[in-house]
Amino acid sequence: MSSGSRPPKAVRERFAPYMDLAARTAEGKWGTTRPNPTVGAVVLDADGNIVATGSTEPAGGRHAEVVALDEAGDRARGGAIVVTLEPCNHTGRTGPCAERILDEGLATVVYAVADPNPVASGGADRLAAAGLDVYGDVGMTADGRGADVLRGPLGSWYHLARTGLPQVTWKYAASLDGRSAAEDGTSQWITGPEARTHTLARRSHHDAIVVGTGTTIADDPSLTARDAEGRPLERQPLRCVMGETEVPDGARVRGEDGRFLHLQTRDPLTAIRTIASAAGPGGESVLLEGGPHLAGAFMQAGMVDRIEAYIAPALLGAGTSALIGAGVDTIGQAHRFTIETVEMIGSDLFAVLTPRLRIPIEQREG
Amino acid sequence: MSSGSRPPKAVRERFAPYMDLAARTAEGKWGTTRPNPTVGAVVLDADGNIVATGSTEPAGGRHAEVVALDEAGDRARGGAIVVTLEPCNHTGRTGPCAERILDEGLATVVYAVADPNPVASGGADRLAAAGLDVYGDVGMTADGRGADVLRGPLGSWYHLARTGLPQVTWKYAASLDGRSAAEDGTSQWITGPEARTHTLARRSHHDAIVVGTGTTIADDPSLTARDAEGRPLERQPLRCVMGETEVPDGARVRGEDGRFLHLQTRDPLTAIRTIASAAGPGGESVLLEGGPHLAGAFMQAGMVDRIEAYIAPALLGAGTSALIGAGVDTIGQAHRFTIETVEMIGSDLFAVLTPRLRIPIEQREG
Ligand SMILES: NC(=O)c1ccc[n+]([C@@H]2O[C@H](COP(=O)([O-])OP(=O)(O)OC[C@H]3O[C@@H](n4cnc5c(N)ncnc54)[C@H](OP(=O)(O)O)[C@@H]3O)[C@@H](O)[C@H]2O)c1
Ligand SMILES: NC(=O)c1ccc[n+]([C@@H]2O[C@H](COP(=O)([O-])OP(=O)(O)OC[C@H]3O[C@@H](n4cnc5c(N)ncnc54)[C@H](OP(=O)(O)O)[C@@H]3O)[C@@H](O)[C@H]2O)c1
Repeated sequence: MSSGSRPPKAVRERFAPYMDLAARTAEGKWGTTRPNPTVGAVVLDADGNIVATGSTEPAGGRHAEVVALDEAGDRARGGAIVVTLEPCNHTGRTGPCAERILDEGLATVVYAVADPNPVASGGADRLAAAGLDVYGDVGMTADGRGADVLRGPLGSWYHLARTGLPQVTWKYAASLDGRSAAEDGTSQWITGPEARTHTLARRSHHDAIVVGTGTTIADDPSLTARDAEGRPLERQPLRCVMGETEVPDGARVRGEDGRFLHLQTRDPLTAIRTIASAAGPGGESVLLEGGPHLAGAFMQAGMVDRIEAYIAPALLGAGTSALIGAGVDTIGQAHRFTIETVEMIGSDLFAVLTPRLRIPIEQREG
Repeated sequence: MSSGSRPPKAVRERFAPYMDLAARTAEGKWGTTRPNPTVGAVVLDADGNIVATGSTEPAGGRHAEVVALDEAGDRARGGAIVVTLEPCNHTGRTGPCAERILDEGLATVVYAVADPNPVASGGADRLAAAGLDVYGDVGMTADGRGADVLRGPLGSWYHLARTGLPQVTWKYAASLDGRSAAEDGTSQWITGPEARTHTLARRSHHDAIVVGTGTTIADDPSLTARDAEGRPLERQPLRCVMGETEVPDGARVRGEDGRFLHLQTRDPLTAIRTIASAAGPGGESVLLEGGPHLAGAFMQAGMVDRIEAYIAPALLGAGTSALIGAGVDTIGQAHRFTIETVEMIGSDLFAVLTPRLRIPIEQREG
């Protein structure tokens, strides 16, 4: 793995807004580029004007750098390319991006995340050896976790590349006092319509979606990704039910497209490995939708890599908790997370969290 | 009660930033001006430049308008005063502010909240009759709840003036899954040091602080307002314990200053009325610090006017809930709130909420 020199503060500050734009450019492609990383790129001309943006096309299509350089044409000469991932150096279905950047005569290359994939990496070294100014880590936080870039669609790809396992996102909805259903079992609706639309659309970011047999039997969910009008989206995750109990023949989760899997195990790691092989090489992201006991088991196993929490400003004072049995007996054993982002979705809070005290990426290397 | 004309959008937009500054000017005085409202004022000269700010002094001292006008001197002539509350019209310990504004030759008066107190009101009418441009409702939301102004120190004063009862703020700290203690009862510390400092300092905003006998016996809290170094602040709320059980002789809450009250009742309304008379005419704000059963009783009685929630990004999956027994059996009965503000305090979330579907102030009038 290679990397450009850690840039001075002035360089980081100058390019951070463009990195932000590159990251946002990639967001629209979330979940569509498997097994390729979902990358965003911005091209600036020699005077520093934005002349093109690009993001990764579906597998077999162009990489983000190529899309942006195709659009920029001659205006890229002497300019800069700002890209969320280190430009690749290998000849896959497309030629290496590093080669293309050299051909176009760019002067500067700025990227956020070094490519952890030994086959594709080396792009930064090659570009630097050819005399370009190459800067890595732009838009990254001090611990290398990647402020915005790894929070976006690149996050799960990177997680898979580094750990060999898909990234597990636990998504839940609860009241402010942490209940996901009232005393009598009713739970429709704790959160508002905006939060529900938001969560249904985001299902298509993932390769698989998992619930326990308990949720399947209680709610009979279809687990399909849907748009704001309730229509199924084109990209549908693999629907998985986990637990030893049989899944009823008529359960909606079975669907009709064959994209259903019953994980007849209670071990989170076994389940995730089975999902990863069923999903194929692009299986980088698993959405754990509960319920509370299954979420507790993943939490206890240390296998929750992200949390997406929808918190309704409602109080119940009784009813089922959103998380049950996470292996915590005393406060010192609490599962501690960091709040990455928090925003209002309609009248609800939406927070994204990642585990605290994860080993900084630099220390995990080598 | 009188009020200036509801101003056109352009006027509201022009003065909103100054109203914001006026509100922030008052914040430092939170809790110190009883029984006077804690008001902030900004004076602009005839060219629209800020020439002075002011906020209410302790009882017997100057009103915010007078502080600001004293500072502005001649520069106020032909200018504007922007103030969070309608200037008073009565001669109390100080002369009426309306009179002073006329004396100084101001051209424009802008305020957020009309004075609900029949003795003091009429200031806007008097100023308008004298030919000044007078605008009320600036910086207020459409429902008249006062976007920023009533979230600040003026809120509890206004609540008392309108309802005859002190405003009850339920403050709690919990994990993301709504637990205030782990399975074995340990709870130190769920939230971080910044949140703890924040909450101890804010105790001095209130006239009384209430916990149940359960919390008193379990934790033996002192319930004192303290600064970041743990030193007691000058202004200390009345310390109240609610419930039928005796409060132990040596309980720290008894203190040595006589500012302790045992509310030997289980009825929230009786308790609040007792506190109001014990606290005297300036008793406008009560901080309910739990525990979960007492908070549940207040919630069920509809007597929580504000929530201050400290939410730690930690998950427990077991342990005591932050709220127990709020009278909700089914989801339709959930106590619904609106999130007024949300911010990070250290690594924790801090949210302020008010009840949803409260009757807009206009409709409550007359
Ligand atoms: N608000 C939300 O976000 C949300 C999301 C989902 C569900 N829910 C609610 O949750 C309720 C269902 O609760 P639940 O806890 O029964 O559902 P669950 O967590 O989906 O299912 C629990 C079942 O999962 C299986 N399982 C597999 N591995 C496990 C392990 N390691 N540890 C424990 N269980 C394991 C067990 O069944 P086997 O005996 O078959 O192995 C267990 O009974 C429903 O009412 C639903 O509405 C809420
Ligand atoms: N995280 C937080 O923010 C926070 C804050 C405070 C406390 N806590 C924790 O809460 C735990 C104590 O829990 P708790 O629920 O026993 O404490 P609590 O709510 O402070 O006290 C409960 C007691 O209040 C009395 N009470 C008065 N009016 C009541 C009513 N209308 N309904 C019910 N009870 C009424 C009852 O005692 P009588 O029989 O004497 O009438 C009842 O047993 C402690 O471990 C403490 O650490 C956490």
